[in-house]
Amino acid sequence: MAVYTEVGDAELEAFLAQYDIGEAQSFKGIAEGVENTNYVLATDKGQYMVTLYEKRVDPKDLPFFLGLMDHLAARGINCPRPISGRDGNALRQLAGKPAAVTSFLPGMWPRRMTVQHCGPVGEALAGLHLAGRDFTIVRPNALSVAGWRPLFDGSRRHIDQALERELDAELDLFEANWPSDLPSGVIHADLFNDNVFFLHDRLSGLIDFYFACNDFLAYDVAICLNAWCFEADNSFNATKARALLQAYDKVRPLGDDERRSLPLLARGSALRFLLTRLYDWVHTPPDALVKRKDPQEYLSKLRFHRSTTSLADYGL
Amino acid sequence: MAVYTEVGDAELEAFLAQYDIGEAQSFKGIAEGVENTNYVLATDKGQYMVTLYEKRVDPKDLPFFLGLMDHLAARGINCPRPISGRDGNALRQLAGKPAAVTSFLPGMWPRRMTVQHCGPVGEALAGLHLAGRDFTIVRPNALSVAGWRPLFDGSRRHIDQALERELDAELDLFEANWPSDLPSGVIHADLFNDNVFFLHDRLSGLIDFYFACNDFLAYDVAICLNAWCFEADNSFNATKARALLQAYDKVRPLGDDERRSLPLLARGSALRFLLTRLYDWVHTPPDALVKRKDPQEYLSKLRFHRSTTSLADYGL
Repeated sequence: MAVYTEVGDAELEAFLAQYDIGEAQSFKGIAEGVENTNYVLATDKGQYMVTLYEKRVDPKDLPFFLGLMDHLAARGINCPRPISGRDGNALRQLAGKPAAVTSFLPGMWPRRMTVQHCGPVGEALAGLHLAGRDFTIVRPNALSVAGWRPLFDGSRRHIDQALERELDAELDLFEANWPSDLPSGVIHADLFNDNVFFLHDRLSGLIDFYFACNDFLAYDVAICLNAWCFEADNSFNATKARALLQAYDKVRPLGDDERRSLPLLARGSALRFLLTRLYDWVHTPPDALVKRKDPQEYLSKLRFHRSTTSLADYGL
Repeated sequence: MAVYTEVGDAELEAFLAQYDIGEAQSFKGIAEGVENTNYVLATDKGQYMVTLYEKRVDPKDLPFFLGLMDHLAARGINCPRPISGRDGNALRQLAGKPAAVTSFLPGMWPRRMTVQHCGPVGEALAGLHLAGRDFTIVRPNALSVAGWRPLFDGSRRHIDQALERELDAELDLFEANWPSDLPSGVIHADLFNDNVFFLHDRLSGLIDFYFACNDFLAYDVAICLNAWCFEADNSFNATKARALLQAYDKVRPLGDDERRSLPLLARGSALRFLLTRLYDWVHTPPDALVKRKDPQEYLSKLRFHRSTTSLADYGL
């Protein structure tokens, strides 16, 4: 949540001159988006977002991200749509960084997640999975099971031995039992509450596709179970999970293999967020610009999933 | 530049229900305003700013600040205008903080200050001074000469002895020679480039009145000389100063006493910003959320003003 890159007046003017979106009337850096710098741009033609891609995004991945948003928007998904300049390109440079203009989505992300949000999230996730089926660019998930042990190796010396043993046992389990043949496709991979907009109790849009990749579709569902279906005290709310899963299933029915794998995928997804948060936690000074997220939350979620025996524990 | 206070969904809804400005369609924290938390609010009726006053603003001063903006806006100054709720109050609580809604000003603050900005700034400053004449609430300037020595005492042990002697000599000089009888009124007191909006090369608005107070009007001019008329290498640009002073003078002619005092006021204003920056510099950890501003810049400006002999050195 920060503006990492300031844009000069002449730079902005030269940048916008390459588009047919009018002249800037206001240009405000917003405190959203941990990975990138985001400005809300208002012109005489409307409102837009301007995103500058900072060092945590690999420029090689930008054609995938921008192409995916364009693909999804063309299929009726409410997501930021990249806007091309007169040269037909949506990606160019601004202030020395790769940058893109996208459409502006109305709505606000819910600060407090309730059961009313979970159905719409499940429905939107399934819609996204269906709309992504014929997207042709491929981006492997660098944060799937093969990436977890190297990630953990960067943090293990900072934690106590009991926790280290516990997480090593989890890694052993996942490396031996992770499914290999579930239905795959484009997943959002980060559909947390700050990436879902609501307007008048209806889901109005999905944002931040910068973790999107190809993986099991059910793994995306598992991420959403972790992101949306726990209470603030980390207790699991099966009513929320049922709402999310039933709404998903109505749009894209989950296969038996996916249903059977869901508890394991949810447990793995909890480990994935635990490991990235742990890494950031031990490598970020406590008073740094970027707010650290407590890894403890995902340890608790991981342990919940370890305790489940079937989908009935998830409300289904 | 940060969002200090998150606003919950229900809190925002309850807050907006007290106004006639429509329902929220988007609500984005912006990375502007070091002192306060600012959100851009879009409703079906238009765009607004919502400001939450953080701990650096004394709630006792808010009737002055909000009253002043309302007073100025009513007299044609383009500044944020506080919007009252149905109860007639512009000031209420949001997320446990004092908060106000104001109108949204189009325009962007210039990242690179040029001579073209200086005339409009001088003209707008004079217009603000005239419009403020009949504002009846009074707020003394806590950061005028009487406040400088206590401020310096909080930093002096962190600097080298030569600099300490130099600044003590400055304080002695100002305490003995600061004028006492120049034309006074409401001053902005912080009209830096990030508080002045331009649109299509025209000044479109003034923002951030949270240092406004009563003091010599010419002291506000002196602050602007420091804020707008130096180059990035801290060299003084007399062409910029001439543009600023002549444009000011056309709207509100400077008296002979003000002209005579201007070099001393500019030197004092440089010391004031040097002292607050020095204080923040030595009391803020280098990696804190708030970006520290280098006090060296204002030492260099102070020394320039010490070297001047008359207004001719300022382009007049």
